[in-house]
Amino acid sequence: MAEHAEHARALYWVGGLDGHVAMIDQTLLPGEFVEMRIDDVETVFDAIRRLAVRGAPAIGVAAGMGVVLGVRDWSGDDRDGFVARVEQVCDYLATSRPTAVNLFWALDRMKRVARASVELSVLDMKERLLAEAIAIHHEDEAMCRSIGDVGEHVIPEGGTVLTHCNAGALATGGMGTALAVMYRAHELGRSFGVYADETRPLLQGARLTTWELMRAGIDVTLICDNTAAHAMKVGRIDLVITGADRIAANGDAANKIGTYGVALLAAAHDVPFYVAAPSSTFDMALACGDEIPIEERSADEVRRGFGTLTSPEDVKCYCPAFDVTPARLIKGIITERGMIEPVTADAVSAVLGDLAGAVN
Amino acid sequence: MAEHAEHARALYWVGGLDGHVAMIDQTLLPGEFVEMRIDDVETVFDAIRRLAVRGAPAIGVAAGMGVVLGVRDWSGDDRDGFVARVEQVCDYLATSRPTAVNLFWALDRMKRVARASVELSVLDMKERLLAEAIAIHHEDEAMCRSIGDVGEHVIPEGGTVLTHCNAGALATGGMGTALAVMYRAHELGRSFGVYADETRPLLQGARLTTWELMRAGIDVTLICDNTAAHAMKVGRIDLVITGADRIAANGDAANKIGTYGVALLAAAHDVPFYVAAPSSTFDMALACGDEIPIEERSADEVRRGFGTLTSPEDVKCYCPAFDVTPARLIKGIITERGMIEPVTADAVSAVLGDLAGAVN
Repeated sequence: MAEHAEHARALYWVGGLDGHVAMIDQTLLPGEFVEMRIDDVETVFDAIRRLAVRGAPAIGVAAGMGVVLGVRDWSGDDRDGFVARVEQVCDYLATSRPTAVNLFWALDRMKRVARASVELSVLDMKERLLAEAIAIHHEDEAMCRSIGDVGEHVIPEGGTVLTHCNAGALATGGMGTALAVMYRAHELGRSFGVYADETRPLLQGARLTTWELMRAGIDVTLICDNTAAHAMKVGRIDLVITGADRIAANGDAANKIGTYGVALLAAAHDVPFYVAAPSSTFDMALACGDEIPIEERSADEVRRGFGTLTSPEDVKCYCPAFDVTPARLIKGIITERGMIEPVTADAVSAVLGDLAGAVN
Repeated sequence: MAEHAEHARALYWVGGLDGHVAMIDQTLLPGEFVEMRIDDVETVFDAIRRLAVRGAPAIGVAAGMGVVLGVRDWSGDDRDGFVARVEQVCDYLATSRPTAVNLFWALDRMKRVARASVELSVLDMKERLLAEAIAIHHEDEAMCRSIGDVGEHVIPEGGTVLTHCNAGALATGGMGTALAVMYRAHELGRSFGVYADETRPLLQGARLTTWELMRAGIDVTLICDNTAAHAMKVGRIDLVITGADRIAANGDAANKIGTYGVALLAAAHDVPFYVAAPSSTFDMALACGDEIPIEERSADEVRRGFGTLTSPEDVKCYCPAFDVTPARLIKGIITERGMIEPVTADAVSAVLGDLAGAVN
């Protein structure tokens, strides 16, 4: 796909085994659009660590490609030695962001492929690893597209969608999750508008969602988080679609701080509220959202969120990173396996099928 | 009062007719606390224009004092000439912020005093004008304190109050409106905490409310606007008190953007929501909140709210300055004349008395 694709591409592999990773440096957005050319695993590590690439699915894709970069120049034909090298590179990449589940998942997958291909030549093992990294990417692209296909009908012609944070192409290997629904509706020629919450404290909505939607030619308007209620009251919002970070077996969904508030405001205005997320987001070991731990972030994200001190230096802050939207406030959960609607534990099981029995 | 007063003082007159205005430069808060010494009307004009002093009541007080500074050095004993000079200075100050109602009200009052005292000597007229400016200030202080007295009982011992924007000492000549309720409870020895919404786009909560509460020794925690819902869900908020910019005859209240959303979230969590405002905030010519016009502000308040571009330079923004909270979401309106509770047109009339019949 070329740079003129309908949606931005967070990262992709260019060429063959001697190729490289092309990756948007998201720390420079929206001021500068820089696609880095990455030839070595250290730079992938650094990109993950400093959030040049972010979003669980995109980090998984980056990790797989990073393994390839870290082992492709290994010389010799000692296949056990090569597997050891793969494991060493995986262990190294695993420390780039210690709590990123998709990172570990992708690295485990790369290690398994290395071990399973130990009967091949080292060169063939390297090719298998590249194929696996690209497969992880393609599966993610397909997952995003399926979410878009499942969900696109919820956006009416001429309608307006509100979203929170960035569950877009920049967070995945494909067209995103919540934003995939919008990209698919756009591809189908539907005309609609999007309102993007700026999403304090880290402003992913202002910095990333507006940037990627504008680039794709989708009509987007930025609002402060506290403006959503008034926008709904005056009839500017027809529906809400957000992503999710973790979903319990009953459909309670954790997502970026502020999502729960938007869901309550939507309920008060009879505006339907949808969540779009891959089935891998469900944690069937959790019966309900009360069991989802809420990470608290540094006070300086609030006090210095814009590079400038905007409050007294020593003021106390309360900065939870996520909140939990109860299933009763969610009209439907859009997954690559189908729509979960109404959102109940039974409907989750029915749509997720085999996943529903497993603890993932 | 000394600098160690329980609440900050936005401005006050120091000395006699040869004295000066002491005024906090709010544009430097919270980074620097600078109390300016102002000796001339041009500097008062500039302070109002560049928001060194803000908040409708505080602007009114500044205007009154500015008139004194602008006429006290007028020489001669031509009393009609002196009245003309007063009117000239008032007309000049009226252009400092063209839509500030309290500014015009204070200037009209100063002009009336000048005209009514034309039988006195010019020196006595100057003294009368100074007395009037100080009276405007004292009346404002008394109004704030009365609001505090009427409302302090709503804050329970050990409770936690959420507020939005800055309806504090920095916005008035006294201890504020919403924050007056907190200052009075604090003076009475009650122990409680405050959560302050940062209040995008202009961050009055982060910059001003936290600063003045910390300075007064009140326990305050800063949150992003989008965190209020989660804070309520986990039981951190017992009640909400905000100010108001304009209140209709039925109790519908316009206030800083985001207030309506907070009121909806409070209702969803059975958290009582109060408005604190002087009777002068009521506009009895408006039957309900639908008639209150909502000013839209510059997109750059959203895009560059922190002095830094935080979004694509050309992204569309929707930036209403206010929203309207319907009376049904307000448990009580705390005025200097008493508590309006429940909030109905009849209760508004009953508490406001003579005001209720007038179009003000």
